[in-house]
Amino acid sequence: MKALTGILLLLFLSMAAYGFAAGTQPGRSNGIAYPEGWQHWAVIGVSHRTDNKTLRVIVGNTTAVTAARSGKITPWPDGSIIGKVVWKDTQLQDWDEATTPGKFVHAEFMFKDSAKYTKSHGWGWARWIGLDKKPFVKGMNGCISCHMPVENQDLVFTHPAAFPR
Amino acid sequence: MKALTGILLLLFLSMAAYGFAAGTQPGRSNGIAYPEGWQHWAVIGVSHRTDNKTLRVIVGNTTAVTAARSGKITPWPDGSIIGKVVWKDTQLQDWDEATTPGKFVHAEFMFKDSAKYTKSHGWGWARWIGLDKKPFVKGMNGCISCHMPVENQDLVFTHPAAFPR
Repeated sequence: MKALTGILLLLFLSMAAYGFAAGTQPGRSNGIAYPEGWQHWAVIGVSHRTDNKTLRVIVGNTTAVTAARSGKITPWPDGSIIGKVVWKDTQLQDWDEATTPGKFVHAEFMFKDSAKYTKSHGWGWARWIGLDKKPFVKGMNGCISCHMPVENQDLVFTHPAAFPR
Repeated sequence: MKALTGILLLLFLSMAAYGFAAGTQPGRSNGIAYPEGWQHWAVIGVSHRTDNKTLRVIVGNTTAVTAARSGKITPWPDGSIIGKVVWKDTQLQDWDEATTPGKFVHAEFMFKDSAKYTKSHGWGWARWIGLDKKPFVKGMNGCISCHMPVENQDLVFTHPAAFPR
């Protein structure tokens, strides 16, 4: 029994150490778990906003990028996750007429599941703020109201950028 | 012999058909072959240029993205390929204060190989123009002269954007 306790303790400590090394996962945003591996997803688009002075890249999981590149996005297929990564728009020190990402603002995501998210237009809406990934927990309605002008584009502002094959 | 010729002919036709379906590979730019699969590489940065009115995303192969995310980029490690994808900066129709990628301009790449590219500061420089991927063949000096102001950053303008782990 003592040996088993020791083994379990070692296992727990190893997992804790691994969790620490890998960066702990943040809490849920609007009930949604933080998506794994989005930092390596491919690009769907870019945007520059002058109202809140931010630069953004729009990335997607494999389902979303495949749909974007083939233009099959009305509607986006179930399983699509679209991520919008936002930084403050900042002067590039070595090129006067260029701006680039400064401070990281947040990463926000739309999760398409037309069966699960019947009350939020087929999408789950989530956001994690800052490099410490603080989950946004004030509900999906704020996200949705902003996206309603593009209801006829399945609530997605992004028109996928052209990529040569 | 006739059977063998028939088999080889079928094989050739299959390969040709596959090449057509996958999009034919373009010619070399400055002696460099078109990089495979860059359309799915992860993001290193973004930039917005007001002088030539373009939006850009900077992507990298696994070696480059690993280096960028860990800050080990002076110098960038051999094997790094950095890609800059350029579109015309265009008004987003559904948000007055936002611009997004319009017409695709070109994709250009820096290939780090300090042994191979001793005459061009350790990098191979290449560009393919337009969606038909027309190779730029006027030599690397035009690229290099523009990048010399950032010689102390291994000739790379991009400061990798912050990503939460």
